[in-house]
Amino acid sequence: MEFSSKLIERAVNEMSQLPGIGKRTALRLVLHLLKQPKEQTGFLAQALVAMREDIKYCASCHNISDSALCEICANKNRNHQIVCIVEDIRDVMAIENTGQFRGIYHVLGGKISPIDGVGPSQLNINTVVEKVKSGSVNEIIFALSSTMEGDTTNFYIYKQIGDCGIIISTIARGISVGDELEYADEVTLGRSILQRVPFEKTFKNN
Amino acid sequence: MEFSSKLIERAVNEMSQLPGIGKRTALRLVLHLLKQPKEQTGFLAQALVAMREDIKYCASCHNISDSALCEICANKNRNHQIVCIVEDIRDVMAIENTGQFRGIYHVLGGKISPIDGVGPSQLNINTVVEKVKSGSVNEIIFALSSTMEGDTTNFYIYKQIGDCGIIISTIARGISVGDELEYADEVTLGRSILQRVPFEKTFKNN
Repeated sequence: MEFSSKLIERAVNEMSQLPGIGKRTALRLVLHLLKQPKEQTGFLAQALVAMREDIKYCASCHNISDSALCEICANKNRNHQIVCIVEDIRDVMAIENTGQFRGIYHVLGGKISPIDGVGPSQLNINTVVEKVKSGSVNEIIFALSSTMEGDTTNFYIYKQIGDCGIIISTIARGISVGDELEYADEVTLGRSILQRVPFEKTFKNN
Repeated sequence: MEFSSKLIERAVNEMSQLPGIGKRTALRLVLHLLKQPKEQTGFLAQALVAMREDIKYCASCHNISDSALCEICANKNRNHQIVCIVEDIRDVMAIENTGQFRGIYHVLGGKISPIDGVGPSQLNINTVVEKVKSGSVNEIIFALSSTMEGDTTNFYIYKQIGDCGIIISTIARGISVGDELEYADEVTLGRSILQRVPFEKTFKNN
């Protein structure tokens, strides 16, 4: 791409470093900013820099937080003996949205993925193992995505925890609510039959 | 969406003001920046602010430029008597990429679109009309997109120019190179038959 202005070129190059944004999309976004008041670009730039510079992580669960302990970890009404292990803040938000979980979280910050160069040492795995070994936890729930990397990470943590006598569970895999059976993939459908649940559980609230 | 951090919330809100970027995409982009070195966010923010603050427009054609006259308008080897009227910088880049045009451009900055509140006075229409009336132009080529707004804008400029004795042309509409005839829409196919060209023109270079 040949640009008539170095300023545009630089902005497009920086913008297209973001995932899923190519040069054409970046140019569209940059031209959009040009048509808006100057303040909008200023606000965007300030918000990004402030976020990147001042971001804090909860000392207990490693979730993104504005204080030393996140709201969930600081909440005494939640069950601190049940820890749900997730990949990042988006998963915390998704589970919180369901309103079905009253325990606390542990944010790993990623999944073990040798292809992307992510090993166990780059993730927040040690702290959850220590938490378990200190005896303050009753149950661990694995809630990573159902991929090779997710399964590997689950298994690694499972091995690290060893035999501590706590409950280790994983979120249920099965047919999505509202899905047609005939379009489900066979692995999911197979699991949903093997791991069938008592019918009464589906309409009694826990 | 409930965020565990005001910093993230603010960054996501600003990011999702951009066209085609919703809250979920914005969150994905913001979390990506968090995983990258701090400098990357700094560079992005600086590039955007510099672009927005220091951007200049060519005094002649209104294209984005780093100097008072853009490279194309300053180039004496180009034919300044043929002016191609386009909507924005992306169209200039697209036509330049073809290598088929050696005239100069005139960037309107948009199309007349009452629905979006864009009238003729917000576009760079007067300057092109003046250019034509000053007698320095031999031919005007309309190269706006083939929509109701594009056609309206073409017609408005055509009326403004009046009878100046110059050539007023528009880029050819027809079947795209490589397209199957049976899938072409009927308006395009109809036009391509009405506006058929001598066969020799398609293999002789002009």
